[in-house]
Amino acid sequence: MRFDILTLFPEMFTGVLGNSILKKAAEKQLVSYNIVDFRDFSEDKHQRVDDYPYGGGGGMVLTPQPIFDALDHVTKNVGTNNRKVILLCPQGERYTQKKAEELAQCEQLIFICGHYEGYDERIREHLVTDEISIGDYVLTGGELGAMVIIDSVSRLLPGVLGNETSAVTDSFSSGLLEYPHYTRPVDFRGFKVPDVLTSGHHKNIEEWRHKEALKRTLTRRPDLIKVRELSDKEKLWLQSIEIED
Amino acid sequence: MRFDILTLFPEMFTGVLGNSILKKAAEKQLVSYNIVDFRDFSEDKHQRVDDYPYGGGGGMVLTPQPIFDALDHVTKNVGTNNRKVILLCPQGERYTQKKAEELAQCEQLIFICGHYEGYDERIREHLVTDEISIGDYVLTGGELGAMVIIDSVSRLLPGVLGNETSAVTDSFSSGLLEYPHYTRPVDFRGFKVPDVLTSGHHKNIEEWRHKEALKRTLTRRPDLIKVRELSDKEKLWLQSIEIED
Repeated sequence: MRFDILTLFPEMFTGVLGNSILKKAAEKQLVSYNIVDFRDFSEDKHQRVDDYPYGGGGGMVLTPQPIFDALDHVTKNVGTNNRKVILLCPQGERYTQKKAEELAQCEQLIFICGHYEGYDERIREHLVTDEISIGDYVLTGGELGAMVIIDSVSRLLPGVLGNETSAVTDSFSSGLLEYPHYTRPVDFRGFKVPDVLTSGHHKNIEEWRHKEALKRTLTRRPDLIKVRELSDKEKLWLQSIEIED
Repeated sequence: MRFDILTLFPEMFTGVLGNSILKKAAEKQLVSYNIVDFRDFSEDKHQRVDDYPYGGGGGMVLTPQPIFDALDHVTKNVGTNNRKVILLCPQGERYTQKKAEELAQCEQLIFICGHYEGYDERIREHLVTDEISIGDYVLTGGELGAMVIIDSVSRLLPGVLGNETSAVTDSFSSGLLEYPHYTRPVDFRGFKVPDVLTSGHHKNIEEWRHKEALKRTLTRRPDLIKVRELSDKEKLWLQSIEIED
């Protein structure tokens, strides 16, 4: 997977891409990162990349020229057309794990990261394949969104996570939130580990965990329960949970 | 606002906190960042911070001791109790702009960032005030979530954004998505700017923009239209938009 990032703040990426699994994924040559400062492509004599909006109003708008040219540059001689050009913006499709799985099938992902400013609409219409928002909150630029997508997609690529099963057993993948975890010590500042977990009784432990996962999902994300195909056991447990409360 | 970040990957934060508005906010002393490697607080002789889960199963679990002690450290002598202790995790409350506004009222935000691993449940129960998820996707750690929250909260603090109005006119704040922006040139590679925007007719421009914002919101985020108190003009426009399509 090749990631290209078009940004005015290339230094923002060093910490995130240079540590932990994203660093290791690049070292193993499973992914590559190409960070492009699209200001370098500006044909303006002062290297400007934005201008006033037609029709007036506050704020500045990113001009099409530097971004179109930077995009030409990162798609030239790449040897694949299996790519997506992603614009990070609040108006975009809400990002989900399903979208991460879809993007993980590509060979090249290109991110266009604006910062403070609007994008000239022609960038949206003629370059971009996917407009994505990572959530209903306002961020200063698209950079954090690009990092979020790179992290969530990379960990789905074969070989990136040490343990191949790790990506599968996470929350959302199983349809339920995770059950509570406990580790040593049994008593920490007077707060104790539930007895069942130290009982050595595997069946009871498994049931407790399944039930706790269901309970937590019911409390925190009832929407996930609604769309779930419940087993008979789960239906019974749900009844008893609802009676308990 | 004081931000404290408990993490095992302190270097991940340098790029994001050291650039753009987050850098300027710290230079203006409107915010401060205190990044704590909680491994430094481990009382284990090998400085371990995780251990096997009680009850068996794969994966490792962060032990309570280093995180409890790191938290004691960052809350000592701070001079405010107006703080939140935030755990980034997929099971948390979905993060929204409204939550950002709520957090912006605090004087100290502390983030606990796990990485790969689970948290001992006692951390959740006895330290954390808010469990937050930035979206329905799986990330390798809580670090990106902490950065997202720091960015979205900081820009709401008075003085952080250069133009005080910028934070207000963004998407979501007005309840509609933004209208399309255009800037020079009028013709770029044959793609043209809509005539109305170069007409100089302010009333027509304003109407076009309002209508386009409504149209885009209807297409992309009908949920926002549903909860909106529509003006009479908007109701009329919505009818004509629905007929056009």
